[in-house]
Amino acid sequence: MSESYQGYVDLRSDTVTRPTSAMREAMYQAEVGDDVYGEDPTVNQLEEYAAHLLGKEASLFVPSGTMANQIAILTHTQRGDEVFIHRDNHIYYYEGGAAAMWSQATFTQLAGPEGLMSPEDLEASIRPKNIHHPRPRLLSLENTHNRAGGAALSRERLRPLIEVARRHQLQVHLDGARIANAAIALGVPIAELTEDVDSVSMCLSKGLGAPVGSVIAGSKAYIDQARVYRKWLGGGMRQAGILAAAGIYALDHHIERLADDHRRALTLAQALIDMGYRVDMPSVPTNMVMVDLDVPVDGVISALKTAGILLGAMGPRRLRLVTHLDVDDEGIQRTIDAFAHLTPAKG
Amino acid sequence: MSESYQGYVDLRSDTVTRPTSAMREAMYQAEVGDDVYGEDPTVNQLEEYAAHLLGKEASLFVPSGTMANQIAILTHTQRGDEVFIHRDNHIYYYEGGAAAMWSQATFTQLAGPEGLMSPEDLEASIRPKNIHHPRPRLLSLENTHNRAGGAALSRERLRPLIEVARRHQLQVHLDGARIANAAIALGVPIAELTEDVDSVSMCLSKGLGAPVGSVIAGSKAYIDQARVYRKWLGGGMRQAGILAAAGIYALDHHIERLADDHRRALTLAQALIDMGYRVDMPSVPTNMVMVDLDVPVDGVISALKTAGILLGAMGPRRLRLVTHLDVDDEGIQRTIDAFAHLTPAKG
Amino acid sequence: MSESYQGYVDLRSDTVTRPTSAMREAMYQAEVGDDVYGEDPTVNQLEEYAAHLLGKEASLFVPSGTMANQIAILTHTQRGDEVFIHRDNHIYYYEGGAAAMWSQATFTQLAGPEGLMSPEDLEASIRPKNIHHPRPRLLSLENTHNRAGGAALSRERLRPLIEVARRHQLQVHLDGARIANAAIALGVPIAELTEDVDSVSMCLSKGLGAPVGSVIAGSKAYIDQARVYRKWLGGGMRQAGILAAAGIYALDHHIERLADDHRRALTLAQALIDMGYRVDMPSVPTNMVMVDLDVPVDGVISALKTAGILLGAMGPRRLRLVTHLDVDDEGIQRTIDAFAHLTPAKG
Amino acid sequence: MSESYQGYVDLRSDTVTRPTSAMREAMYQAEVGDDVYGEDPTVNQLEEYAAHLLGKEASLFVPSGTMANQIAILTHTQRGDEVFIHRDNHIYYYEGGAAAMWSQATFTQLAGPEGLMSPEDLEASIRPKNIHHPRPRLLSLENTHNRAGGAALSRERLRPLIEVARRHQLQVHLDGARIANAAIALGVPIAELTEDVDSVSMCLSKGLGAPVGSVIAGSKAYIDQARVYRKWLGGGMRQAGILAAAGIYALDHHIERLADDHRRALTLAQALIDMGYRVDMPSVPTNMVMVDLDVPVDGVISALKTAGILLGAMGPRRLRLVTHLDVDDEGIQRTIDAFAHLTPAKG
Repeated sequence: MSESYQGYVDLRSDTVTRPTSAMREAMYQAEVGDDVYGEDPTVNQLEEYAAHLLGKEASLFVPSGTMANQIAILTHTQRGDEVFIHRDNHIYYYEGGAAAMWSQATFTQLAGPEGLMSPEDLEASIRPKNIHHPRPRLLSLENTHNRAGGAALSRERLRPLIEVARRHQLQVHLDGARIANAAIALGVPIAELTEDVDSVSMCLSKGLGAPVGSVIAGSKAYIDQARVYRKWLGGGMRQAGILAAAGIYALDHHIERLADDHRRALTLAQALIDMGYRVDMPSVPTNMVMVDLDVPVDGVISALKTAGILLGAMGPRRLRLVTHLDVDDEGIQRTIDAFAHLTPAKG
Repeated sequence: MSESYQGYVDLRSDTVTRPTSAMREAMYQAEVGDDVYGEDPTVNQLEEYAAHLLGKEASLFVPSGTMANQIAILTHTQRGDEVFIHRDNHIYYYEGGAAAMWSQATFTQLAGPEGLMSPEDLEASIRPKNIHHPRPRLLSLENTHNRAGGAALSRERLRPLIEVARRHQLQVHLDGARIANAAIALGVPIAELTEDVDSVSMCLSKGLGAPVGSVIAGSKAYIDQARVYRKWLGGGMRQAGILAAAGIYALDHHIERLADDHRRALTLAQALIDMGYRVDMPSVPTNMVMVDLDVPVDGVISALKTAGILLGAMGPRRLRLVTHLDVDDEGIQRTIDAFAHLTPAKG
Repeated sequence: MSESYQGYVDLRSDTVTRPTSAMREAMYQAEVGDDVYGEDPTVNQLEEYAAHLLGKEASLFVPSGTMANQIAILTHTQRGDEVFIHRDNHIYYYEGGAAAMWSQATFTQLAGPEGLMSPEDLEASIRPKNIHHPRPRLLSLENTHNRAGGAALSRERLRPLIEVARRHQLQVHLDGARIANAAIALGVPIAELTEDVDSVSMCLSKGLGAPVGSVIAGSKAYIDQARVYRKWLGGGMRQAGILAAAGIYALDHHIERLADDHRRALTLAQALIDMGYRVDMPSVPTNMVMVDLDVPVDGVISALKTAGILLGAMGPRRLRLVTHLDVDDEGIQRTIDAFAHLTPAKG
Repeated sequence: MSESYQGYVDLRSDTVTRPTSAMREAMYQAEVGDDVYGEDPTVNQLEEYAAHLLGKEASLFVPSGTMANQIAILTHTQRGDEVFIHRDNHIYYYEGGAAAMWSQATFTQLAGPEGLMSPEDLEASIRPKNIHHPRPRLLSLENTHNRAGGAALSRERLRPLIEVARRHQLQVHLDGARIANAAIALGVPIAELTEDVDSVSMCLSKGLGAPVGSVIAGSKAYIDQARVYRKWLGGGMRQAGILAAAGIYALDHHIERLADDHRRALTLAQALIDMGYRVDMPSVPTNMVMVDLDVPVDGVISALKTAGILLGAMGPRRLRLVTHLDVDDEGIQRTIDAFAHLTPAKG
């Protein structure tokens, strides 16, 4: 089932990064304990660190971004509640049947550019309190927005939606798997982008380059309840400090460098545009390049693979190229050269 | 909490009909048994009758349209499955948090005129088989479509959607709460409108005028499983023949007469249009009239109530007027007169 | 699938009673409205009447005892809560997978004579507050207790269990499907038996002889929430006053007469004991007779059926005989005679 | 919230072990890839290795024993199914509300010595196929059995239960968190103890000493489905090879040495018995010692803590002492000495 892609330029996702030597060293040295008992000092340190970065009282280390989001939904809702979400949001689009299976909540899907529904649509979709309707409870957002081409969304852009939510007593969750990318792209502290929400998840294993793990942050009471759901979902790990050490290293060393990933994505996008490709650029781009073809993506993907370049698909005719820690300037140049050789079969 | 609206022209819904004397007589005379044991002859007769009318192998009597739909969803799906549904469909819009709570299925909502998503949108929303996505399982339709103004949808209009569903191995459920209205309006047998779907619910207590109950129809195996879910939802009633007798009476006597309701709705709609009201008429209308105001509906509703007319709201600025067994020509005239007196405050 | 058992002495269950002429007359005359709008005067009257009888602020009419119990569980719990219940309780034993499916609560089953766990066992089963355990929430009792031979349980017998529950902040639900039988057998008002619990269900279609329906009673706030769950389970019926009228008639005329059923059950039990049968009599019996055979029950059931007597099975070698409105003294004598003819093949 | 217990003899659980230097070295050197894409060579190697050891076609690496068990339940059941389980089984006793929340299955709890219900009780609890009952689906066992004092259960002891299960078409899951302890104590290959079951979980982070993770093994089709549930529960990790390397090291080096833990537990048990303590020894003991006091455990626990020894509680008056990789002979002697000083306050 497994293939080795050593030596490839792997643009499929920023999840493919491998830990650096320094990060491996941090894991090797990590002081650990049993985190189910709350006794892993490295996990505790990571949770304090992440809470601080995200501007919340507390945070919780979990094995994946999906678990972070599922715990967030569970902690905000009870059966019969309603969650308002963009139809391209990761929780609806990429977490399988999970949210529906675990939470018994109703997910109302809305549409709109850059992963944002309009405040008017959100307002209109909140039905009056009535025995015929679920109980409106949560607005769930995402930043950067993956399916919107990695769009970084400023606090100002989210604010009108959050105002509608507050007016209707909704809570607000932010899937901030790539919130560090958003902060770097927008030139603001991460905490500025999370100040207006009740809970936020952040992934350590995407752009930040840790091998495993995410954090979810919120109030102390919220995280206490989230810890129960983590245990019940099977996310309570024992000497998790091994992984947390990589997370701490990532927060220390891999946030500022996201600017390099963004620069490389822009170089790549510009080159593809120059070749005549249709690139769907969000207003504030980060580490992703979306390319729309006129033909199915399979041909391009397999031609590039032959050239040692791995690309992802975001739809039958949409390619996604993601820059990250393991793609350097030379990799970008190799990719541009490989695309150049495709022309004029570019679709 | 209760008010008596005796003497009012009640256009809020066709659910408000009271059983006629003849229907009451049928209930009084009904032969009954314990239906949980399958021994109520009148229930059994109704279930055979309804199955025949709906063109299916078997049917099941249940206490409400909501239960019919919930059983349908449960019987078609397992946890982790995905249901494709119009966002104005009754199951999504008017059954509270029920579908999400009981089925653990993902509900993907689509939009489009007259309660129909486009085949292209449906096709595009069916994601590839992948660990990141729920399992596509069911397309759920509605005919007539309540929130689309009671639109009757011909077999030809549903077919392209059902073709997409079949191509992707989806099953198809039809909420036919008012399928008899659709058949009468289109001038076709009910069974023609249900032939292409796997399961269909039909309400006996709306236009058909029975006090309580719906049926759900499908294959023998489907109904066997549906019977289990009925029991587990608490829908297994004992001497339910009392109610089934009213249902049989309704099927015998109240289908053809729906044409009167449709004629009266048209009269009403035309009069309102003539007064300058904006009436949202579907291409094949039935027993509903949707009126869009420029102001909140409360003023009109309360003015008409004073005049002895009860109206419903379908939104903050949308009125719904529904004709039925208990509204005669005089009631329609009284309503028209009452609206006439409102002018020019019509909003 | 259906057989007619007209003319049989049907001792399978008290659910098989058919409405009397007077009860049918009450249904025929019932004033009705749309109960989903709260406008059915007869339903409203029944709900007030039942609340009064059960000593609670409010009650709700539902289509079945199973729905009454399922709503009770849902209204008391949230996902992750724990319910303590006797393993012979109807909710665990006879409601299929319902409680587990709808509530997502953990059901901890306990054992003990006459449908009661010991207070010590209950106490020991309540685990300390801890991330590894569900949240203790509800004690669920049953009176009379069906699988314990229809045992009537006095307030004094339930009190020690309820005291344990209260000490641990558990709420208490009582499945009082046959609470009227208990009150008559114990010679106390129904309300005395329900005073110590938070919620109670009572069946109108078992010993009380109505064709369909149960009520659930509790505080006003509790019933308001229960009404939401009734709608979401599909238990919201329209002109349900037809059924409620039978319920009111049953409460007016069929409570005191339960003493006849109890007398007849005793006569039957005594005759069977005299013939050498092992009869499992609870300390306060009501309308049930449990007979333990040394052989599988099928032979006796089919021999008696030939003689025009229908019996039920409570296990592979246990018969259940239930007296009710439709079994008179002559039916009891016929049953005794039929058993007499079986000897010595009695097993 | 965290305390450092460096230098303590920690007998609370075998989950507290810290990775050895050699294990840390293995993690440091681990070759990794993105396991969500199936590309982590070390995870793949661990999964093949564990499948082989457990005698199954395939296995899956997951972050915890709780997730392994929850995935097992989900993969074996659909909503409405019934699981038969000992009331002291980890899945029922220590996984919070998880099983009930995620699976919507009914859990029927049985009792009996050494974590085994009797075959007769199991048989009697399987209700006939009937609309009133859930669908019997799964028997869930545990070996060694934690709450039964770490009892190792031979294949012969489990066989009669599995035979009942097979006769009723039940599947069988084994929580083998400590199955390696069982195999060592019984002197048989692990695969002999898992041959008769459909699925088995095994923990790498308890006696085997890895920092994080469990595996679940079964048929290829079973594991394919389990992988979906792992993703949906949020257990899909990225460069999980870091952890898998520790697991491989543990399987290579820490199975045989469990005999030392068992010997030390026996030494400890014997010493406590000699001091007059009541020790509840299973017929085949492993690495646990259960001590029953006449007084609440808190006094002993805190006295021993002062002496640098950490004990666990298995109930208000029951202590649990667990030997493991990080407890050597000297630690055992320190523990014995500390208990000796307690006398005669031993309770």
